[in-house]
Amino acid sequence: MFSISTAFSLVVQVNQNYLKLKAGYLFPEISRRVNAFLKSNPNAKLIRLGIGDVTEPLPLACREAMKSAIDSMGTSEGFHGYGPEQGYQWLREAIAKNDFQSRGCEISADEIFISDGSKCDSSNILDILSNQNRIAVTDPVYPVYVDSNVMNGNTGEALSSGQYEDLIYLPINADNCFKAEIPTEKVDLIYLCFPNNPTGAVLNHEQLSEWVSYAKENKSLILFDAAYEAFIQDESLPHSIYEIDGAKDCAIEFRSFSKNAGFTGTRCAFTIIPKTLKGECINGDKIDIWGLWNRRQSTKFNGASYIVQRGAQAVYSPEGKEQIKSLVHFYMENAAIIRNNLIDHGLKVYGGENAPYVWLKVPETMNSWEFFDKMLSEANVVGTPGSGFGPAGEGYFRLSAFNSRSNVQSAMHRIMSL
Amino acid sequence: MFSISTAFSLVVQVNQNYLKLKAGYLFPEISRRVNAFLKSNPNAKLIRLGIGDVTEPLPLACREAMKSAIDSMGTSEGFHGYGPEQGYQWLREAIAKNDFQSRGCEISADEIFISDGSKCDSSNILDILSNQNRIAVTDPVYPVYVDSNVMNGNTGEALSSGQYEDLIYLPINADNCFKAEIPTEKVDLIYLCFPNNPTGAVLNHEQLSEWVSYAKENKSLILFDAAYEAFIQDESLPHSIYEIDGAKDCAIEFRSFSKNAGFTGTRCAFTIIPKTLKGECINGDKIDIWGLWNRRQSTKFNGASYIVQRGAQAVYSPEGKEQIKSLVHFYMENAAIIRNNLIDHGLKVYGGENAPYVWLKVPETMNSWEFFDKMLSEANVVGTPGSGFGPAGEGYFRLSAFNSRSNVQSAMHRIMSL
Repeated sequence: MFSISTAFSLVVQVNQNYLKLKAGYLFPEISRRVNAFLKSNPNAKLIRLGIGDVTEPLPLACREAMKSAIDSMGTSEGFHGYGPEQGYQWLREAIAKNDFQSRGCEISADEIFISDGSKCDSSNILDILSNQNRIAVTDPVYPVYVDSNVMNGNTGEALSSGQYEDLIYLPINADNCFKAEIPTEKVDLIYLCFPNNPTGAVLNHEQLSEWVSYAKENKSLILFDAAYEAFIQDESLPHSIYEIDGAKDCAIEFRSFSKNAGFTGTRCAFTIIPKTLKGECINGDKIDIWGLWNRRQSTKFNGASYIVQRGAQAVYSPEGKEQIKSLVHFYMENAAIIRNNLIDHGLKVYGGENAPYVWLKVPETMNSWEFFDKMLSEANVVGTPGSGFGPAGEGYFRLSAFNSRSNVQSAMHRIMSL
Repeated sequence: MFSISTAFSLVVQVNQNYLKLKAGYLFPEISRRVNAFLKSNPNAKLIRLGIGDVTEPLPLACREAMKSAIDSMGTSEGFHGYGPEQGYQWLREAIAKNDFQSRGCEISADEIFISDGSKCDSSNILDILSNQNRIAVTDPVYPVYVDSNVMNGNTGEALSSGQYEDLIYLPINADNCFKAEIPTEKVDLIYLCFPNNPTGAVLNHEQLSEWVSYAKENKSLILFDAAYEAFIQDESLPHSIYEIDGAKDCAIEFRSFSKNAGFTGTRCAFTIIPKTLKGECINGDKIDIWGLWNRRQSTKFNGASYIVQRGAQAVYSPEGKEQIKSLVHFYMENAAIIRNNLIDHGLKVYGGENAPYVWLKVPETMNSWEFFDKMLSEANVVGTPGSGFGPAGEGYFRLSAFNSRSNVQSAMHRIMSL
């Protein structure tokens, strides 16, 4: 390999895995179609229920905490330079207590790593893993899980189906009630996101326990994305995978302040790496995953902003908790409005009850992108074609509850009038 | 490989390159010795001139801009969710104009990628490069360049010298006036940091031109870390590698708000990837580096905080520029106090004239760590042993100018009294 490279190359060599990525990434393609439509229809008043971005003001408690942090940064005594790469202890403790210990999960503050976003964490996690693992993702899926594996050289080429060689796809569809089937073969690494993006599906205690049992039996690692846990309305559902016995031996969990507290533009998230979690070397030696991630973060990251971490801490104050609760309630009212209108309109609708996403079956005569184009041109509503999340999403369409009440109502009015 | 892995492994496999990393990373070892000393001497009043962290209050212009951004995040109209992964255009344009175009560098806003830190950027850059490149670093060196290569599998094992197999080390020492010699062999990737961390050395226009010529002749890529450019006092020195003709064809530059504006805890930095920069595939195809980094950032990063980017923008306001200038001036006065005192004390001193670091030769009878221990126990001053930055740093010691005036004066008083 090295001799080939010396013979052929005079220029610095690139990571060729990037060339396997498909050019038409979902959201840029949506932008392209939206911009083309707006060019021909410059007066159209578009309502965007596509990308999962929040719209409502940042909670007052978070704003006040950040402004007070900024004031303290203006004094010599209150100035904060480099913080711990793992995050400040006061934030890690607030999270451990409120999000985990209060629900009976034995997660301690030092198992929590604060970061600037879940997109970073859920893709950077591959840094500490070998590329010899067999990896499973659901279909449809949040594209970052797949693309980060492609970039990391963990897949083969893109297939014409839109899938990649060497990844194992677990379909999520109406036939399996959007839960994904437990694999029949052994996989080493499994990405699960529940409440699910994009389908809005959830797993109950029993269903999540089946995944933990599978992982423990097969010594697999589950990467559990719980970015939407705050939207769970049904009190019987688990919010964290650590509510399941044994999960501390087989799961990493990703959490974020993006959706519950509206931090998509403010940037703060966290990842839980239990100290009991083990990975393996080729010779069979066991290695602590916690130590690897701690080293990765210490070397390649410099901690999340002190100011932003103070804002995140306020999420756990009494005022913050109330404000987050109303924010989530507001978006879930939007979700109910979307669900009810679409059902009244005769569409088959999933999700939207414990998640901010409504996943609808498009009429039989159309595929996902055709339905996207119809919504765009006739209702001036932007959603997300299900097929953009993977081939099993074909025939579905995602609408997000993240918008103002009046925009949601207008969007529904327009769709109902079609 | 795959069959071995199936046969031996039942557990998820880890990236074994992490196991090559040396346990005793520099700063944790300093902490360990400091804590041990404090345990036996609980009343010692330590002055820390070790880690390169700033200490003075955040500039008022930045604080005001961030508070006003927080206020706007409290309104529906002024709320900002996901921003562009590349950073907001207003910040990219302010940087292009003030830091580059004003110095005659043809860098455009869309060649600038905003991030949450240079440590992230300078280690994440390896994501888009192959591990078939021959890589050169200076010795002494900022440890992140080396460790990120070890983690990425770009090196062999650690040697007893403290160096790693398969990395090419370019000594920086008094014999070559701390400039590093141009390599005699072809290397594909070269890390350069000037003004230098840890030695405080600088390159003039002619010296930097030699590097650019080497890179162009050898089709190498220079990773140029200019985190300390704001501390340059000599007006004839280049601040950016793009002040050298041809650098846009062979260099990436890393910049940060950490040191000039005191953002070490606030977090904002940027990386310049010229659109003219090319890398190569094994088959000889040329690939735009810009496109690869754009894809990396879009997939694995979600943009820097809107609030923090507004703070960074204020660095370029008339008030911000004045405040940054005084902050830099203040630290450079500290550097002069350190330099002058140490010279008076009969020590050989380098750096500290165009950089916030003073690099001193420890007395012949001691090595770097012995001098560290002496400073700690007898002067209660914490510095950084030069050998911690690489074997060629043995016999040197780094003192940072980042502290209050009274701490710097007390530290010098204590050292002078030894």
